[in-house]
Amino acid sequence: MRIGVLTAGGDCPGLNAVIRSVVHRAVHDRNDEVIGFEDGFTGLLDGRYRTLDTNDVAGILARGGTILGSARLERDRLREACDNSEELIDRLGLDALIPIGGEGTLTAARMLADAGLPVVGVPKTIDNDISATDRTFGFDTAVGVATEAMDRLKTTAESHQRVMVVEVMGRHAGWIALEAGMAAGAHGICIPERPFEVDDLVKMVEERFAREKKFALICVAEGAHPAEGSMPYEKGVIDRYGHERFVGIGNRLASELEHRLGKEAKPVILGHVQRGGTPTAYDRVLATRFGWHAVEAAHRGDFGRMTALRGTEIVMTPLANAVTELKRVPQDRMDEAESVY
Amino acid sequence: MRIGVLTAGGDCPGLNAVIRSVVHRAVHDRNDEVIGFEDGFTGLLDGRYRTLDTNDVAGILARGGTILGSARLERDRLREACDNSEELIDRLGLDALIPIGGEGTLTAARMLADAGLPVVGVPKTIDNDISATDRTFGFDTAVGVATEAMDRLKTTAESHQRVMVVEVMGRHAGWIALEAGMAAGAHGICIPERPFEVDDLVKMVEERFAREKKFALICVAEGAHPAEGSMPYEKGVIDRYGHERFVGIGNRLASELEHRLGKEAKPVILGHVQRGGTPTAYDRVLATRFGWHAVEAAHRGDFGRMTALRGTEIVMTPLANAVTELKRVPQDRMDEAESVY
Amino acid sequence: MRIGVLTAGGDCPGLNAVIRSVVHRAVHDRNDEVIGFEDGFTGLLDGRYRTLDTNDVAGILARGGTILGSARLERDRLREACDNSEELIDRLGLDALIPIGGEGTLTAARMLADAGLPVVGVPKTIDNDISATDRTFGFDTAVGVATEAMDRLKTTAESHQRVMVVEVMGRHAGWIALEAGMAAGAHGICIPERPFEVDDLVKMVEERFAREKKFALICVAEGAHPAEGSMPYEKGVIDRYGHERFVGIGNRLASELEHRLGKEAKPVILGHVQRGGTPTAYDRVLATRFGWHAVEAAHRGDFGRMTALRGTEIVMTPLANAVTELKRVPQDRMDEAESVY
Amino acid sequence: MRIGVLTAGGDCPGLNAVIRSVVHRAVHDRNDEVIGFEDGFTGLLDGRYRTLDTNDVAGILARGGTILGSARLERDRLREACDNSEELIDRLGLDALIPIGGEGTLTAARMLADAGLPVVGVPKTIDNDISATDRTFGFDTAVGVATEAMDRLKTTAESHQRVMVVEVMGRHAGWIALEAGMAAGAHGICIPERPFEVDDLVKMVEERFAREKKFALICVAEGAHPAEGSMPYEKGVIDRYGHERFVGIGNRLASELEHRLGKEAKPVILGHVQRGGTPTAYDRVLATRFGWHAVEAAHRGDFGRMTALRGTEIVMTPLANAVTELKRVPQDRMDEAESVY
Repeated sequence: MRIGVLTAGGDCPGLNAVIRSVVHRAVHDRNDEVIGFEDGFTGLLDGRYRTLDTNDVAGILARGGTILGSARLERDRLREACDNSEELIDRLGLDALIPIGGEGTLTAARMLADAGLPVVGVPKTIDNDISATDRTFGFDTAVGVATEAMDRLKTTAESHQRVMVVEVMGRHAGWIALEAGMAAGAHGICIPERPFEVDDLVKMVEERFAREKKFALICVAEGAHPAEGSMPYEKGVIDRYGHERFVGIGNRLASELEHRLGKEAKPVILGHVQRGGTPTAYDRVLATRFGWHAVEAAHRGDFGRMTALRGTEIVMTPLANAVTELKRVPQDRMDEAESVY
Repeated sequence: MRIGVLTAGGDCPGLNAVIRSVVHRAVHDRNDEVIGFEDGFTGLLDGRYRTLDTNDVAGILARGGTILGSARLERDRLREACDNSEELIDRLGLDALIPIGGEGTLTAARMLADAGLPVVGVPKTIDNDISATDRTFGFDTAVGVATEAMDRLKTTAESHQRVMVVEVMGRHAGWIALEAGMAAGAHGICIPERPFEVDDLVKMVEERFAREKKFALICVAEGAHPAEGSMPYEKGVIDRYGHERFVGIGNRLASELEHRLGKEAKPVILGHVQRGGTPTAYDRVLATRFGWHAVEAAHRGDFGRMTALRGTEIVMTPLANAVTELKRVPQDRMDEAESVY
Repeated sequence: MRIGVLTAGGDCPGLNAVIRSVVHRAVHDRNDEVIGFEDGFTGLLDGRYRTLDTNDVAGILARGGTILGSARLERDRLREACDNSEELIDRLGLDALIPIGGEGTLTAARMLADAGLPVVGVPKTIDNDISATDRTFGFDTAVGVATEAMDRLKTTAESHQRVMVVEVMGRHAGWIALEAGMAAGAHGICIPERPFEVDDLVKMVEERFAREKKFALICVAEGAHPAEGSMPYEKGVIDRYGHERFVGIGNRLASELEHRLGKEAKPVILGHVQRGGTPTAYDRVLATRFGWHAVEAAHRGDFGRMTALRGTEIVMTPLANAVTELKRVPQDRMDEAESVY
Repeated sequence: MRIGVLTAGGDCPGLNAVIRSVVHRAVHDRNDEVIGFEDGFTGLLDGRYRTLDTNDVAGILARGGTILGSARLERDRLREACDNSEELIDRLGLDALIPIGGEGTLTAARMLADAGLPVVGVPKTIDNDISATDRTFGFDTAVGVATEAMDRLKTTAESHQRVMVVEVMGRHAGWIALEAGMAAGAHGICIPERPFEVDDLVKMVEERFAREKKFALICVAEGAHPAEGSMPYEKGVIDRYGHERFVGIGNRLASELEHRLGKEAKPVILGHVQRGGTPTAYDRVLATRFGWHAVEAAHRGDFGRMTALRGTEIVMTPLANAVTELKRVPQDRMDEAESVY
């Protein structure tokens, strides 16, 4: 077979591990040819690719980023390509295409599949918010980085009687905040799924200080937002070009708490540190398994689907499932987390 | 309720996280009383315990070991106690007992449950070999430690053209070797489930050297053993007290490979480093959830069962299930691992 | 002897290691009595202290923060105390006082020493900017944390063609930016000692993109500032209480670069993560040696001085030296760093 | 200039950082040509080398091992080459040769220098035992790895009442054992410089158990040995080929302690994990500075010398100094370490 692989969307630890696994399984075990498109779908549409041999993927298993690069999707061009899918298939001579990416990528993958391309998707989201799979690679690494940072911050908070507000990733779903917050023993966790009351946080901190636990650690997802009326809107920075630059919820919440509590509240915005660098062992294993099973699915002709983790097994699930509904943190998971505040 | 908790068996990162979670959920949320027995079942039988308040578990979430201590099970004394279970229940005044431990502990837990004690088990095994649960806490940490060690060893192997044999934990099941081996990109993985042929390893190394990949990393579980006739038995050290001290499979295999290959093959025995210290975020979350759900089960009167992970959910499963059958690495997981040699 | 110890100023990994070492050397080896004042000089002036035994310092060697707490110095109260130093000495019955802290603390220590108190200082600054000592503990940990974060960011920058601006600590001296920048292979390093030209950074990035190195990592100390005319002042956030909240140089520089380059430039502000948590082995050793030698100096009656590292030796140096002049990054160190851009 | 660089001897984190720094400084800043000899002096004698450009050293700063490889020195061939040094110089057309290596390498470097080759040495030893320099790169990484391992082991030792014996590197000098032992708070440290009495260790452990500190961590350098009569010689393993395989001091000491104490004493042999993988920030900075200054020395014609750290400065010191005397742990450093047992 001739198998194409591409990575699209934001960075996520484990992308290289998937690529390596695809190449090992396809080229080494099954005598396939693997080509890697550069810069995501752009490379596919432009026909920019290189052949990938096992030598090309040597030493990349533990490396962050993606050796294939990534780029924003040009949706119009993609749609156009779908309209001429036969031409595209002929031109590239692909027996299978394995796009690795998040919601946008998988939506595009579905379009291509619907247009007749032999697509096997591999889901990728640092936020773990794709409902068709128990977990996605990269998430464990992000949680690990955030937890380690909060472990560090907690010692300072405790000995210096500080309130720390740590903003982690999670635009639409609060999985990173939930798990890192639980793992680090945060005293408050704010997630997009449930608007938070600033009053509750203020009360929690005051109670802690009253109980001689004179510090608090609050973990807030970037997509969390206050309940209506809970915290007035604060204008962001206007930079000298007249653009308002977003002041994230972490900074705004720390500022608000500082005013209400009359105590220093320090914001820490972890940002991109969470989505780069060496993946954890967990993510390397999951990514490797996804790559392996994607090749197997291609050989079975199991197209229009993507790999997914269910329990301990890797299964194939329709691409349609990946993008219909976001996997959100359910209330019972928050209940578990809150009992250990 | 009055809830007793104890930890038994070998060390495992996450024990303290379970204890903390039990105390937070029971004492803080549900107004229970929690007592912690010292040194496992010995403390239970001797009535050695202390009351655990949230202050007692402050700061232990990320700490290795167990604040309650652990000790070998005295099976005879336990059996005797079971015969007088009413006396034991009366004496301790327990509404629930939460033993945290491995196969031996859960077997004992089942005996106690059969004798009428209100037992809710929490499974613990660094080896991940309890079949009733998808994963156990501690395993992810062990895999992480082993992977990081192999990441380091691989750079030396590669630049100095060495064969490295790394022995990891796993007496009866090869999960640590499988996952750490996959995560580190080991070129050979030996597990107890499948006797290995030394000839195959020799051939693999020779082929790599022939292909200018002049190094190899082999990950071997402590319980792995050569296929019959594959490698002669080598006597261990006789120490000066006349005891033969076990020379593990890692050392023996390295020695054998060195002789057959005519190249240096260095053994590294990771040992206890894998089962101590700060748990990963994954293990802290799993351990915390186990503790929370054990308390809930106690409140529901759901005794004679233990917590288990199934997919993303924590469920309760009969203690009997925990100990009937070891969870072994199936062939298809080895197939996945071997394709990325 | 009766020895008092206190920690003052911001957090710094290694404070607990000094306290532990003082107690071990004094109490265990020399049969001294050690008392620990709470919350820095405040505890000294208020007479709030507790006796420290070896049990009290068990397990703190690797822990961040300080078991004694810390608080801002009330300079007026301290001056008053100096005027009545005999009363203070009588009241506390101290044979030696070991304050552990930065510039402010050491200045206060000197005042107390001049007023007749038997003071032995231990220098502490995460920024490594005390000229009397080759290194201070905490610095190595901060550099390590910043380097690890940049290692992660670099993989994303490289695969996603990004410009990353990482702000690290260093208000008056750029040691952290210098060493972390060198260690992580940053392509630009901005330190307070040398105003930077934005044009130079723009040019560097453009050259890299032209050479197919389509990414750049810039490490900027929080106290770095643009050369006059190089970058217009940008107003910070006005929060809803009318306070202008500082928008640090990292955010401002990223915004400026983004506009000039027409490419995304992501700021990452590491902040307090750098000054909390487990110290590196280097910092634990240095902190331990400082504590040990402080006790020895007290026994020799070597007061009015502080511990310092010179080469591989711990020496005593006048407190006066500590605070006269900031240790700044010299030009030749920047030359070294820039050659590896 | 045309500058040759080579790496020789065992692995050491930071080798790649030196190579990268040499290339950046020489090629990028000074328009030199740099060639890298493969497999140490063997490549020099065989004329096996490749040109190194900045692209060739991209991404290696944080990578363990050496991109140039390494091999055992063939002393006879080298001596022969020295006898025909003019031929060698003519053949290679070198203006400077920068060998990076330990005692053996630097001795060879000196021979070459005496024979007229323009040599600038860069010292390398994981053991930190070269007396002409305050520190060598790689050492900090080794100490860090050993400390982290002992941090983990300590939690198990404490909660499970174990004696742990950890063997670290250090054949002739005990610096790693000293610093890692101090950093991890080991209760006993055994180094080659001072034969240890087993009785002292037994007494220490028994006292700890009597004081309810029912665990002990002992850090022993691989080159440490018992005082005469302190511990009988124990024969090593005879493997099936009749070779006695060395049973290191860690295993022997654990066995002896177990017998004398009547308690489990677990040996952990860290081995090669200490000398591979990503270097710490400290080691990357030191290695980078060594490389930079080696190029500068070459341009100044400062041959027959090597780079060395003195305090915070990099200086040049005669190659002769490097190899005359081993830097051993002095008694006062052991005194410091022992006070914190």
